Amino acid sequence: MADPVIIGTVALDSIETPFGKVRDALGGSATYASLAASFFSKPGILSIIGRDFPKNHIKFFNSRGIDTAGISLGDRTFRWQGFYEFDMNEAKTLRTELNALESYKVSVPGHYKEAKYIFLANIDPELQLEVINSIKNPELIVMDTMNFWIGHKKNQLLKTIKKADILVLNDGEARQLFGTPNLVKAANKALKMVSKAVIIKKGEHGALLFTDKKHFSAPGYPLENIKDPTGCGDTFGGALIGYIAKTKDAGEKNLRKAVVYGSILASYNAEGFGPEKLKSVSHEDIEKRYREFRDITEIS
Amino acid sequence: MADPVIIGTVALDSIETPFGKVRDALGGSATYASLAASFFSKPGILSIIGRDFPKNHIKFFNSRGIDTAGISLGDRTFRWQGFYEFDMNEAKTLRTELNALESYKVSVPGHYKEAKYIFLANIDPELQLEVINSIKNPELIVMDTMNFWIGHKKNQLLKTIKKADILVLNDGEARQLFGTPNLVKAANKALKMVSKAVIIKKGEHGALLFTDKKHFSAPGYPLENIKDPTGCGDTFGGALIGYIAKTKDAGEKNLRKAVVYGSILASYNAEGFGPEKLKSVSHEDIEKRYREFRDITEIS
Repeated sequence: MADPVIIGTVALDSIETPFGKVRDALGGSATYASLAASFFSKPGILSIIGRDFPKNHIKFFNSRGIDTAGISLGDRTFRWQGFYEFDMNEAKTLRTELNALESYKVSVPGHYKEAKYIFLANIDPELQLEVINSIKNPELIVMDTMNFWIGHKKNQLLKTIKKADILVLNDGEARQLFGTPNLVKAANKALKMVSKAVIIKKGEHGALLFTDKKHFSAPGYPLENIKDPTGCGDTFGGALIGYIAKTKDAGEKNLRKAVVYGSILASYNAEGFGPEKLKSVSHEDIEKRYREFRDITEIS
Repeated sequence: MADPVIIGTVALDSIETPFGKVRDALGGSATYASLAASFFSKPGILSIIGRDFPKNHIKFFNSRGIDTAGISLGDRTFRWQGFYEFDMNEAKTLRTELNALESYKVSVPGHYKEAKYIFLANIDPELQLEVINSIKNPELIVMDTMNFWIGHKKNQLLKTIKKADILVLNDGEARQLFGTPNLVKAANKALKMVSKAVIIKKGEHGALLFTDKKHFSAPGYPLENIKDPTGCGDTFGGALIGYIAKTKDAGEKNLRKAVVYGSILASYNAEGFGPEKLKSVSHEDIEKRYREFRDITEIS
Protein backbone atom coordinates (compact mmCIF):
# COMPACT_ATOMS: atom_id res chain seq x y z
CA MET A 1 0.00 0.00 0.00
CA ALA A 2 1.41 3.38 -1.06
CA ASP A 3 -0.30 6.18 0.82
CA PRO A 4 0.10 9.12 0.33
CA VAL A 5 0.71 9.03 -3.40
CA ILE A 6 3.12 11.80 -4.35
CA ILE A 7 3.64 13.00 -7.89
CA GLY A 8 6.54 15.32 -8.64
CA THR A 9 10.02 15.41 -10.05
CA VAL A 10 12.95 13.15 -9.22
CA ALA A 11 16.04 15.02 -10.31
CA LEU A 12 19.76 15.39 -10.19
CA ASP A 13 20.53 18.85 -8.82
CA SER A 14 23.67 20.92 -8.98
CA ILE A 15 23.49 23.63 -6.35
CA GLU A 16 25.79 26.38 -5.18
CA THR A 17 25.21 28.50 -2.08
CA PRO A 18 27.60 30.83 -0.20
CA PHE A 19 28.30 27.83 2.04
CA GLY A 20 29.28 25.17 -0.48
CA LYS A 21 28.18 23.29 -3.57
CA VAL A 22 27.07 19.87 -4.77
CA ARG A 23 26.87 18.32 -8.24
CA ASP A 24 24.23 15.92 -9.51
CA ALA A 25 22.84 15.40 -6.02
CA LEU A 26 19.52 13.63 -5.44
CA GLY A 27 16.78 16.23 -5.80
CA GLY A 28 13.34 17.02 -7.19
CA SER A 29 10.00 17.86 -5.62
CA ALA A 30 8.87 14.22 -5.23
CA THR A 31 12.20 13.30 -3.66
CA TYR A 32 12.01 15.91 -0.88
CA ALA A 33 8.27 15.40 -0.38
CA SER A 34 8.41 11.60 -0.14
CA LEU A 35 11.44 11.66 2.14
CA ALA A 36 9.64 14.06 4.50
CA ALA A 37 6.40 12.04 4.29
CA SER A 38 8.30 8.82 5.10
CA PHE A 39 8.76 10.00 8.70
CA PHE A 40 5.02 9.54 9.18
CA SER A 41 3.72 7.10 6.55
CA LYS A 42 4.53 4.90 3.53
CA PRO A 43 4.43 7.18 0.47
CA GLY A 44 4.53 6.05 -3.13
CA ILE A 45 6.24 8.20 -5.76
CA LEU A 46 4.91 8.93 -9.24
CA SER A 47 7.70 10.33 -11.41
CA ILE A 48 10.20 9.53 -14.15
CA ILE A 49 13.96 9.06 -14.09
CA GLY A 50 16.55 8.18 -16.75
CA ARG A 51 18.96 5.28 -17.18
CA ASP A 52 21.68 7.51 -15.71
CA PHE A 53 19.91 7.69 -12.34
CA PRO A 54 22.10 6.08 -9.65
CA LYS A 55 20.51 2.83 -8.39
CA ASN A 56 21.63 3.54 -4.84
CA HIS A 57 19.10 6.42 -4.68
CA ILE A 58 16.29 3.94 -5.42
CA LYS A 59 17.68 1.63 -2.77
CA PHE A 60 17.75 4.57 -0.38
CA PHE A 61 14.10 5.43 -1.11
CA ASN A 62 13.09 1.82 -0.50
CA SER A 63 15.10 1.70 2.73
CA ARG A 64 12.91 4.56 3.99
CA GLY A 65 9.73 2.68 3.16
CA ILE A 66 9.09 4.76 0.02
CA ASP A 67 7.40 2.86 -2.79
CA THR A 68 9.15 3.48 -6.12
CA ALA A 69 6.94 1.26 -8.29
CA GLY A 70 5.43 4.43 -9.77
CA ILE A 71 8.75 5.77 -11.03
CA SER A 72 8.87 5.32 -14.81
CA LEU A 73 12.11 4.87 -16.70
CA GLY A 74 13.07 7.22 -19.52
CA ASP A 75 16.29 8.13 -21.21
CA ARG A 76 18.01 10.78 -19.12
CA THR A 77 17.10 12.14 -15.68
CA PHE A 78 15.69 15.65 -15.24
CA ARG A 79 18.48 18.01 -14.15
CA TRP A 80 18.38 21.39 -12.42
CA GLN A 81 21.29 23.70 -11.81
CA GLY A 82 20.93 26.75 -9.61
CA PHE A 83 22.51 28.97 -7.02
CA TYR A 84 21.63 31.15 -4.08
CA GLU A 85 23.04 34.55 -3.32
CA PHE A 86 24.08 35.76 0.10
CA ASP A 87 20.55 36.30 1.39
CA MET A 88 19.48 32.73 0.42
CA ASN A 89 15.96 33.93 -0.25
CA GLU A 90 15.48 32.80 -3.78
CA ALA A 91 16.95 30.11 -6.01
CA LYS A 92 18.36 31.46 -9.26
CA THR A 93 18.14 28.92 -12.03
CA LEU A 94 21.20 28.54 -14.23
CA ARG A 95 19.95 25.62 -16.29
CA THR A 96 16.98 23.25 -16.52
CA GLU A 97 17.23 20.04 -18.56
CA LEU A 98 13.79 18.48 -18.75
CA ASN A 99 15.10 15.31 -20.44
CA ALA A 100 12.81 12.33 -19.66
CA LEU A 101 10.28 14.66 -18.02
CA GLU A 102 9.47 16.20 -21.39
CA SER A 103 7.57 13.15 -22.63
CA TYR A 104 6.45 11.80 -19.24
CA LYS A 105 3.08 10.05 -19.26
CA VAL A 106 1.74 9.33 -15.78
CA SER A 107 1.43 5.58 -15.18
CA VAL A 108 -0.19 4.73 -11.88
CA PRO A 109 0.51 1.24 -10.47
CA GLY A 110 -2.62 -0.67 -9.43
CA HIS A 111 -1.84 -0.68 -5.73
CA TYR A 112 -1.41 3.13 -5.73
CA LYS A 113 -5.02 3.55 -6.86
CA GLU A 114 -6.41 2.68 -3.45
CA ALA A 115 -4.58 5.57 -1.77
CA LYS A 116 -6.64 7.98 0.33
CA TYR A 117 -4.13 10.83 0.35
CA ILE A 118 -2.58 12.56 -2.64
CA PHE A 119 0.19 15.13 -2.70
CA LEU A 120 0.61 16.92 -6.00
CA ALA A 121 4.14 18.25 -5.60
CA ASN A 122 5.45 20.81 -8.05
CA ILE A 123 5.16 19.49 -11.62
CA ASP A 124 3.08 20.31 -14.73
CA PRO A 125 -0.54 20.88 -13.56
CA GLU A 126 -1.81 18.64 -16.38
CA LEU A 127 0.13 15.73 -14.88
CA GLN A 128 -1.22 16.64 -11.46
CA LEU A 129 -4.76 16.50 -12.83
CA GLU A 130 -4.14 13.07 -14.36
CA VAL A 131 -3.18 11.74 -10.94
CA ILE A 132 -6.36 13.08 -9.38
CA ASN A 133 -8.31 11.23 -12.06
CA SER A 134 -6.38 7.99 -11.56
CA ILE A 135 -6.87 7.49 -7.82
CA LYS A 136 -10.19 5.75 -7.13
CA ASN A 137 -11.50 7.38 -4.04
CA PRO A 138 -9.16 9.95 -2.51
CA GLU A 139 -10.06 11.55 0.82
CA LEU A 140 -7.71 14.50 0.59
CA ILE A 141 -5.84 16.13 -2.27
CA VAL A 142 -3.08 18.54 -1.33
CA MET A 143 -1.55 20.52 -4.16
CA ASP A 144 1.65 22.52 -4.49
CA THR A 145 2.83 24.52 -7.49
CA MET A 146 5.42 27.10 -8.52
CA ASN A 147 5.71 30.44 -10.31
CA PHE A 148 6.69 28.78 -13.62
CA TRP A 149 3.20 27.23 -13.99
CA ILE A 150 1.48 30.46 -12.96
CA GLY A 151 3.34 32.18 -15.78
CA HIS A 152 3.10 29.45 -18.42
CA LYS A 153 0.01 27.32 -17.77
CA LYS A 154 -2.30 29.45 -15.66
CA ASN A 155 -5.56 28.06 -17.07
CA GLN A 156 -4.56 24.45 -16.58
CA LEU A 157 -3.25 25.33 -13.15
CA LEU A 158 -6.54 26.91 -12.07
CA LYS A 159 -8.41 23.87 -13.38
CA THR A 160 -6.31 21.57 -11.20
CA ILE A 161 -6.57 23.85 -8.16
CA LYS A 162 -10.37 23.57 -8.37
CA LYS A 163 -10.04 19.80 -7.83
CA ALA A 164 -7.80 20.19 -4.78
CA ASP A 165 -8.82 20.23 -1.12
CA ILE A 166 -5.79 22.09 0.14
CA LEU A 167 -3.61 24.47 -1.89
CA VAL A 168 -0.05 25.02 -0.70
CA LEU A 169 1.98 27.82 -2.25
CA ASN A 170 4.57 30.36 -1.25
CA ASP A 171 3.90 34.02 -0.56
CA GLY A 172 5.31 35.30 -3.85
CA GLU A 173 3.24 32.75 -5.80
CA ALA A 174 0.09 33.63 -3.88
CA ARG A 175 0.58 37.32 -4.69
CA GLN A 176 1.27 36.53 -8.35
CA LEU A 177 -1.56 34.04 -8.86
CA PHE A 178 -4.26 36.13 -7.20
CA GLY A 179 -3.02 39.57 -8.29
CA THR A 180 -2.80 41.22 -4.88
CA PRO A 181 0.09 42.06 -2.56
CA ASN A 182 -2.11 41.26 0.45
CA LEU A 183 -1.78 37.63 1.54
CA VAL A 184 -5.11 37.61 3.39
CA LYS A 185 -6.90 38.75 0.24
CA ALA A 186 -4.99 36.19 -1.84
CA ALA A 187 -5.91 33.45 0.61
CA ASN A 188 -9.58 34.43 0.59
CA LYS A 189 -9.61 34.23 -3.19
CA ALA A 190 -7.90 30.84 -3.08
CA LEU A 191 -10.36 29.57 -0.47
CA LYS A 192 -13.16 30.03 -2.98
CA MET A 193 -11.46 27.54 -5.31
CA VAL A 194 -10.54 24.69 -2.96
CA SER A 195 -12.73 22.70 -0.58
CA LYS A 196 -10.78 22.95 2.63
CA ALA A 197 -7.71 25.13 3.21
CA VAL A 198 -4.96 27.32 1.82
CA ILE A 199 -1.45 27.25 3.20
CA ILE A 200 0.98 30.04 2.38
CA LYS A 201 4.65 29.24 2.96
CA LYS A 202 6.76 32.27 3.84
CA GLY A 203 10.27 30.78 4.16
CA GLU A 204 12.07 32.24 7.18
CA HIS A 205 8.81 33.94 8.24
CA GLY A 206 6.91 30.68 8.77
CA ALA A 207 3.62 29.56 7.25
CA LEU A 208 -0.02 30.64 7.32
CA LEU A 209 -3.01 28.30 7.35
CA PHE A 210 -6.35 29.69 6.21
CA THR A 211 -9.57 27.74 6.52
CA ASP A 212 -13.07 29.11 6.16
CA LYS A 213 -13.42 30.21 9.73
CA LYS A 214 -9.99 30.09 11.30
CA HIS A 215 -6.49 31.37 10.82
CA PHE A 216 -3.25 29.86 12.08
CA SER A 217 0.23 31.35 11.91
CA ALA A 218 3.21 29.03 12.33
CA PRO A 219 6.48 30.78 13.15
CA GLY A 220 9.71 30.37 11.24
CA TYR A 221 12.17 28.25 13.19
CA PRO A 222 15.06 30.54 14.24
CA LEU A 223 17.82 29.00 12.12
CA GLU A 224 21.24 30.53 12.51
CA ASN A 225 22.94 28.32 9.94
CA ILE A 226 21.12 27.80 6.68
CA LYS A 227 23.21 25.81 4.25
CA ASP A 228 20.85 25.20 1.36
CA PRO A 229 17.13 25.96 1.16
CA THR A 230 16.59 23.73 -1.91
CA GLY A 231 13.56 21.52 -1.43
CA CYS A 232 12.28 23.16 1.76
CA GLY A 233 8.87 23.84 0.23
CA ASP A 234 8.57 20.28 -1.06
CA THR A 235 9.72 18.96 2.32
CA PHE A 236 7.04 21.08 4.01
CA GLY A 237 4.29 19.64 1.80
CA GLY A 238 5.54 16.07 2.13
CA ALA A 239 5.65 16.17 5.92
CA LEU A 240 2.21 17.79 5.92
CA ILE A 241 0.56 15.07 3.82
CA GLY A 242 2.53 12.35 5.59
CA TYR A 243 1.31 13.50 8.98
CA ILE A 244 -2.30 13.80 7.78
CA ALA A 245 -2.15 10.33 6.20
CA LYS A 246 -0.82 8.91 9.46
CA THR A 247 -3.44 10.55 11.67
CA LYS A 248 -6.31 10.30 9.13
CA ASP A 249 -7.55 13.66 10.37
CA ALA A 250 -7.84 16.78 8.22
CA GLY A 251 -9.70 18.85 10.83
CA GLU A 252 -8.44 22.38 11.46
CA LYS A 253 -6.76 21.52 14.74
CA ASN A 254 -4.85 18.64 13.20
CA LEU A 255 -4.00 20.70 10.12
CA ARG A 256 -2.21 23.11 12.47
CA LYS A 257 -0.10 20.22 13.74
CA ALA A 258 0.57 19.11 10.17
CA VAL A 259 1.75 22.64 9.31
CA VAL A 260 4.10 22.57 12.30
CA TYR A 261 5.51 19.18 11.26
CA GLY A 262 5.94 20.57 7.75
CA SER A 263 7.82 23.55 9.17
CA ILE A 264 10.00 21.33 11.33
CA LEU A 265 11.10 19.04 8.51
CA ALA A 266 11.69 22.06 6.25
CA SER A 267 13.82 23.72 8.94
CA TYR A 268 15.99 20.62 9.25
CA ASN A 269 16.25 20.33 5.48
CA ALA A 270 17.71 23.84 5.21
CA GLU A 271 20.54 22.84 7.55
CA GLY A 272 22.16 20.49 5.01
CA PHE A 273 22.98 20.37 1.31
CA GLY A 274 20.35 18.76 -0.88
CA PRO A 275 18.36 16.24 1.21
CA GLU A 276 21.44 15.22 3.24
CA LYS A 277 20.12 16.47 6.56
CA LEU A 278 16.77 14.69 6.12
CA LYS A 279 18.74 11.43 5.95
CA SER A 280 20.04 11.82 9.50
CA VAL A 281 17.09 13.43 11.29
CA SER A 282 15.45 11.21 13.93
CA HIS A 283 11.91 11.08 15.30
CA GLU A 284 13.38 12.35 18.54
CA ASP A 285 14.83 15.40 16.71
CA ILE A 286 11.41 16.07 15.24
CA GLU A 287 9.59 15.86 18.56
CA LYS A 288 12.23 18.07 20.20
CA ARG A 289 11.65 20.78 17.61
CA TYR A 290 7.87 20.35 17.95
CA ARG A 291 8.19 21.26 21.63
CA GLU A 292 10.34 24.25 20.64
CA PHE A 293 7.68 25.44 18.18
CA ARG A 294 5.15 25.36 21.00
CA ASP A 295 7.52 27.19 23.29
CA ILE A 296 8.46 30.00 20.89
CA THR A 297 4.81 30.81 20.21
CA GLU A 298 3.48 30.63 23.75
CA ILE A 299 1.46 33.64 24.84
CA SER A 300 0.19 33.59 28.41
CA MET B 1 4.37 61.99 36.90
CA ALA B 2 5.25 61.25 33.28
CA ASP B 3 6.21 57.60 32.90
CA PRO B 4 7.30 56.33 30.41
CA VAL B 5 9.28 59.26 29.04
CA ILE B 6 9.26 59.13 25.25
CA ILE B 7 11.64 61.13 23.08
CA GLY B 8 11.00 61.30 19.36
CA THR B 9 9.59 63.52 16.67
CA VAL B 10 6.26 65.34 16.61
CA ALA B 11 5.56 66.08 12.98
CA LEU B 12 3.10 67.12 10.35
CA ASP B 13 2.96 64.34 7.78
CA SER B 14 1.69 64.36 4.23
CA ILE B 15 1.07 60.79 3.16
CA GLU B 16 -0.22 59.13 0.04
CA THR B 17 -1.08 55.43 -0.25
CA PRO B 18 -3.05 53.55 -2.92
CA PHE B 19 -6.05 54.01 -0.63
CA GLY B 20 -6.03 57.75 -0.06
CA LYS B 21 -4.00 60.71 1.12
CA VAL B 22 -3.69 63.20 3.95
CA ARG B 23 -1.89 66.54 4.21
CA ASP B 24 -0.15 67.94 7.30
CA ALA B 25 -1.65 65.26 9.52
CA LEU B 26 -0.44 64.72 13.07
CA GLY B 27 2.59 62.41 12.89
CA GLY B 28 6.10 61.70 14.17
CA SER B 29 7.62 58.88 16.15
CA ALA B 30 6.83 60.38 19.58
CA THR B 31 3.24 61.00 18.53
CA TYR B 32 2.52 57.41 17.56
CA ALA B 33 4.54 56.00 20.46
CA SER B 34 2.92 58.15 23.14
CA LEU B 35 -0.57 57.57 21.77
CA ALA B 36 -0.01 53.81 21.89
CA ALA B 37 1.58 54.01 25.35
CA SER B 38 -1.38 56.04 26.63
CA PHE B 39 -3.59 52.93 26.50
CA PHE B 40 -1.55 51.53 29.38
CA SER B 41 0.15 54.40 31.23
CA LYS B 42 0.76 58.16 31.43
CA PRO B 43 3.60 58.94 29.04
CA GLY B 44 5.45 62.24 28.77
CA ILE B 45 6.77 63.43 25.41
CA LEU B 46 10.16 65.00 24.78
CA SER B 47 10.17 66.71 21.41
CA ILE B 48 9.98 70.04 19.61
CA ILE B 49 7.22 71.64 17.52
CA GLY B 50 6.87 74.97 15.76
CA ARG B 51 4.48 77.89 16.15
CA ASP B 52 2.52 76.48 13.22
CA PHE B 53 1.58 73.33 15.15
CA PRO B 54 -2.20 73.16 15.65
CA LYS B 55 -3.11 73.63 19.31
CA ASN B 56 -5.90 71.08 19.08
CA HIS B 57 -3.25 68.35 18.69
CA ILE B 58 -1.77 69.35 22.06
CA LYS B 59 -5.26 69.33 23.56
CA PHE B 60 -5.77 65.89 22.09
CA PHE B 61 -2.52 64.60 23.61
CA ASN B 62 -3.55 65.95 27.00
CA SER B 63 -7.03 64.45 26.68
CA ARG B 64 -5.33 61.05 26.40
CA GLY B 65 -3.31 61.63 29.56
CA ILE B 66 -0.13 62.40 27.63
CA ASP B 67 2.15 64.94 29.28
CA THR B 68 3.33 67.57 26.81
CA ALA B 69 5.43 69.64 29.22
CA GLY B 70 8.54 68.26 27.52
CA ILE B 71 7.59 69.54 24.08
CA SER B 72 9.76 72.55 23.26
CA LEU B 73 8.64 75.33 20.98
CA GLY B 74 10.66 76.28 17.91
CA ASP B 75 9.88 78.11 14.72
CA ARG B 76 8.34 75.65 12.30
CA THR B 77 7.25 72.03 12.86
CA PHE B 78 9.17 69.11 11.39
CA ARG B 79 7.46 67.91 8.22
CA TRP B 80 7.62 64.62 6.37
CA GLN B 81 6.10 63.84 3.01
CA GLY B 82 6.04 60.31 1.68
CA PHE B 83 4.10 57.70 -0.20
CA TYR B 84 3.59 53.97 -0.40
CA GLU B 85 3.36 51.91 -3.52
CA PHE B 86 0.89 49.12 -4.13
CA ASP B 87 2.62 46.59 -1.87
CA MET B 88 2.68 49.04 1.09
CA ASN B 89 5.91 47.52 2.31
CA GLU B 90 8.12 50.55 2.45
CA ALA B 91 7.62 54.28 2.83
CA LYS B 92 9.24 56.28 0.06
CA THR B 93 10.25 59.72 1.25
CA LEU B 94 9.48 62.63 -1.05
CA ARG B 95 10.60 65.41 1.27
CA THR B 96 11.88 65.93 4.79
CA GLU B 97 11.87 69.40 6.35
CA LEU B 98 13.74 69.25 9.64
CA ASN B 99 12.79 72.82 10.59
CA ALA B 100 12.76 73.22 14.40
CA LEU B 101 14.25 69.76 14.82
CA GLU B 102 17.52 70.94 13.32
CA SER B 103 18.52 72.95 16.37
CA TYR B 104 16.58 70.96 18.99
CA LYS B 105 18.25 70.80 22.41
CA VAL B 106 16.65 68.30 24.75
CA SER B 107 15.13 70.00 27.77
CA VAL B 108 13.78 67.59 30.36
CA PRO B 109 11.14 68.92 32.79
CA GLY B 110 11.92 68.18 36.44
CA HIS B 111 8.99 65.84 36.95
CA TYR B 112 10.08 63.69 33.96
CA LYS B 113 13.40 62.95 35.67
CA GLU B 114 11.83 60.54 38.13
CA ALA B 115 10.54 58.26 35.35
CA LYS B 116 11.45 54.57 35.54
CA TYR B 117 10.77 53.76 31.90
CA ILE B 118 12.27 55.40 28.84
CA PHE B 119 11.39 54.90 25.22
CA LEU B 120 13.85 56.33 22.76
CA ALA B 121 11.71 56.51 19.65
CA ASN B 122 13.32 57.20 16.31
CA ILE B 123 15.33 60.45 16.45
CA ASP B 124 19.04 61.43 16.35
CA PRO B 125 20.94 58.95 18.60
CA GLU B 126 22.80 61.84 20.25
CA LEU B 127 19.48 63.23 21.48
CA GLN B 128 18.51 59.74 22.64
CA LEU B 129 21.73 59.53 24.65
CA GLU B 130 21.05 62.90 26.27
CA VAL B 131 17.73 61.62 27.53
CA ILE B 132 19.36 58.55 29.07
CA ASN B 133 21.73 60.88 30.90
CA SER B 134 18.92 63.16 32.09
CA ILE B 135 16.67 60.61 33.80
CA LYS B 136 17.84 59.98 37.37
CA ASN B 137 17.33 56.30 37.92
CA PRO B 138 15.68 54.53 35.00
CA GLU B 139 14.74 50.88 35.34
CA LEU B 140 14.35 50.09 31.67
CA ILE B 141 15.53 51.83 28.52
CA VAL B 142 13.93 50.69 25.27
CA MET B 143 15.43 52.08 22.08
CA ASP B 144 14.20 52.25 18.50
CA THR B 145 16.07 53.63 15.50
CA MET B 146 15.91 53.76 11.72
CA ASN B 147 18.07 53.14 8.66
CA PHE B 148 18.95 56.85 8.31
CA TRP B 149 20.97 56.79 11.55
CA ILE B 150 22.64 53.50 10.62
CA GLY B 151 23.82 55.13 7.43
CA HIS B 152 24.68 58.58 8.79
CA LYS B 153 25.59 58.28 12.48
CA LYS B 154 26.55 54.67 13.03
CA ASN B 155 29.17 55.32 15.72
CA GLN B 156 26.88 57.53 17.80
CA LEU B 157 24.09 55.01 17.28
CA LEU B 158 26.20 52.10 18.57
CA LYS B 159 27.22 54.19 21.57
CA THR B 160 23.57 54.77 22.47
CA ILE B 161 22.60 51.13 21.84
CA LYS B 162 25.19 50.08 24.43
CA LYS B 163 23.27 52.07 27.06
CA ALA B 164 19.93 50.47 26.20
CA ASP B 165 18.28 47.47 27.82
CA ILE B 166 16.08 46.54 24.88
CA LEU B 167 16.78 47.34 21.23
CA VAL B 168 13.81 47.45 18.87
CA LEU B 169 14.44 47.61 15.13
CA ASN B 170 12.97 46.30 11.94
CA ASP B 171 14.31 43.37 9.94
CA GLY B 172 15.95 45.47 7.23
CA GLU B 173 17.67 47.64 9.83
CA ALA B 174 18.87 44.58 11.77
CA ARG B 175 20.40 43.13 8.60
CA GLN B 176 21.99 46.47 7.70
CA LEU B 177 23.35 47.32 11.15
CA PHE B 178 24.85 43.90 11.85
CA GLY B 179 25.95 43.07 8.32
CA THR B 180 24.20 39.72 7.91
CA PRO B 181 21.04 38.60 6.09
CA ASN B 182 20.34 36.13 8.92
CA LEU B 183 18.09 37.65 11.59
CA VAL B 184 19.13 35.13 14.26
CA LYS B 185 22.78 36.05 13.74
CA ALA B 186 21.91 39.76 13.76
CA ALA B 187 19.95 39.34 17.00
CA ASN B 188 22.79 37.44 18.64
CA LYS B 189 25.19 40.25 17.77
CA ALA B 190 22.73 42.83 19.13
CA LEU B 191 22.24 40.85 22.33
CA LYS B 192 25.93 41.35 23.11
CA MET B 193 25.38 45.12 23.15
CA VAL B 194 22.22 45.48 25.24
CA SER B 195 21.46 44.20 28.73
CA LYS B 196 18.16 42.45 28.16
CA ALA B 197 16.52 41.82 24.80
CA VAL B 198 16.34 42.49 21.09
CA ILE B 199 13.06 42.81 19.26
CA ILE B 200 12.95 42.60 15.48
CA LYS B 201 9.81 44.00 13.84
CA LYS B 202 8.92 42.30 10.56
CA GLY B 203 5.82 44.23 9.45
CA GLU B 204 3.19 41.85 8.08
CA HIS B 205 5.31 38.89 9.26
CA GLY B 206 5.07 39.80 12.95
CA ALA B 207 7.87 40.36 15.46
CA LEU B 208 10.66 38.36 17.05
CA LEU B 209 11.81 38.66 20.64
CA PHE B 210 15.30 37.44 21.49
CA THR B 211 16.57 37.23 25.05
CA ASP B 212 19.68 35.38 26.22
CA LYS B 213 17.99 32.05 26.63
CA LYS B 214 14.62 32.24 24.95
CA HIS B 215 13.02 33.08 21.66
CA PHE B 216 9.48 34.26 20.98
CA SER B 217 7.80 34.72 17.65
CA ALA B 218 4.68 36.90 17.48
CA PRO B 219 2.58 36.45 14.35
CA GLY B 220 1.50 39.22 12.05
CA TYR B 221 -2.18 39.98 12.50
CA PRO B 222 -4.01 38.92 9.30
CA LEU B 223 -5.03 42.34 8.03
CA GLU B 224 -7.05 42.39 4.85
CA ASN B 225 -7.34 46.15 4.62
CA ILE B 226 -4.20 48.13 5.27
CA LYS B 227 -4.75 51.82 4.67
CA ASP B 228 -1.52 53.41 5.84
CA PRO B 229 1.38 51.73 7.64
CA THR B 230 2.92 55.07 8.73
CA GLY B 231 3.87 54.98 12.40
CA CYS B 232 3.26 51.25 12.93
CA GLY B 233 6.81 50.70 14.21
CA ASP B 234 6.54 53.65 16.61
CA THR B 235 3.12 52.46 17.72
CA PHE B 236 4.58 49.02 18.42
CA GLY B 237 7.35 50.47 20.59
CA GLY B 238 5.01 52.81 22.43
CA ALA B 239 2.53 50.09 23.34
CA LEU B 240 5.42 47.87 24.41
CA ILE B 241 6.92 50.42 26.83
CA GLY B 242 3.46 51.49 27.98
CA TYR B 243 2.52 47.93 28.89
CA ILE B 244 5.84 47.31 30.66
CA ALA B 245 5.48 50.58 32.60
CA LYS B 246 1.98 49.59 33.63
CA THR B 247 2.92 46.07 34.77
CA LYS B 248 6.40 47.00 36.10
CA ASP B 249 7.66 43.65 34.85
CA ALA B 250 10.36 43.21 32.22
CA GLY B 251 10.68 39.44 32.66
CA GLU B 252 10.70 37.32 29.50
CA LYS B 253 7.15 36.10 29.92
CA ASN B 254 5.80 39.62 30.34
CA LEU B 255 7.95 40.90 27.46
CA ARG B 256 6.10 38.41 25.24
CA LYS B 257 2.82 39.99 26.29
CA ALA B 258 4.27 43.46 25.67
CA VAL B 259 5.31 42.36 22.16
CA VAL B 260 1.77 41.12 21.51
CA TYR B 261 0.26 44.41 22.73
CA GLY B 262 2.75 46.24 20.51
CA SER B 263 1.63 44.12 17.55
CA ILE B 264 -2.05 44.70 18.33
CA LEU B 265 -1.78 48.49 18.47
CA ALA B 266 0.37 48.50 15.33
CA SER B 267 -2.20 46.35 13.51
CA TYR B 268 -4.98 48.76 14.41
CA ASN B 269 -2.85 51.73 13.41
CA ALA B 270 -2.37 50.35 9.89
CA GLU B 271 -6.15 50.30 9.43
CA GLY B 272 -6.45 54.07 9.35
CA PHE B 273 -4.67 57.09 7.91
CA GLY B 274 -2.06 58.67 10.15
CA PRO B 275 -2.99 57.99 13.80
CA GLU B 276 -6.75 58.26 13.09
CA LYS B 277 -7.54 54.66 13.98
CA LEU B 278 -5.65 54.85 17.28
CA LYS B 279 -8.04 57.61 18.28
CA SER B 280 -11.05 55.30 18.15
CA VAL B 281 -9.63 52.00 19.40
CA SER B 282 -11.03 50.86 22.76
CA HIS B 283 -9.59 48.69 25.49
CA GLU B 284 -12.20 46.14 24.53
CA ASP B 285 -10.89 46.14 20.93
CA ILE B 286 -7.39 45.56 22.25
CA GLU B 287 -8.38 42.65 24.47
CA LYS B 288 -10.42 41.12 21.65
CA ARG B 289 -7.39 41.14 19.38
CA TYR B 290 -5.22 39.77 22.22
CA ARG B 291 -7.47 36.72 22.36
CA GLU B 292 -7.20 36.42 18.59
CA PHE B 293 -3.40 36.50 18.77
CA ARG B 294 -3.54 33.61 21.23
CA ASP B 295 -5.95 31.73 19.02
CA ILE B 296 -4.03 32.12 15.77
CA THR B 297 -0.84 30.79 17.34
CA GLU B 298 -2.28 27.89 19.30
CA ILE B 299 -0.53 24.58 18.74
CA SER B 300 -2.01 21.62 20.59
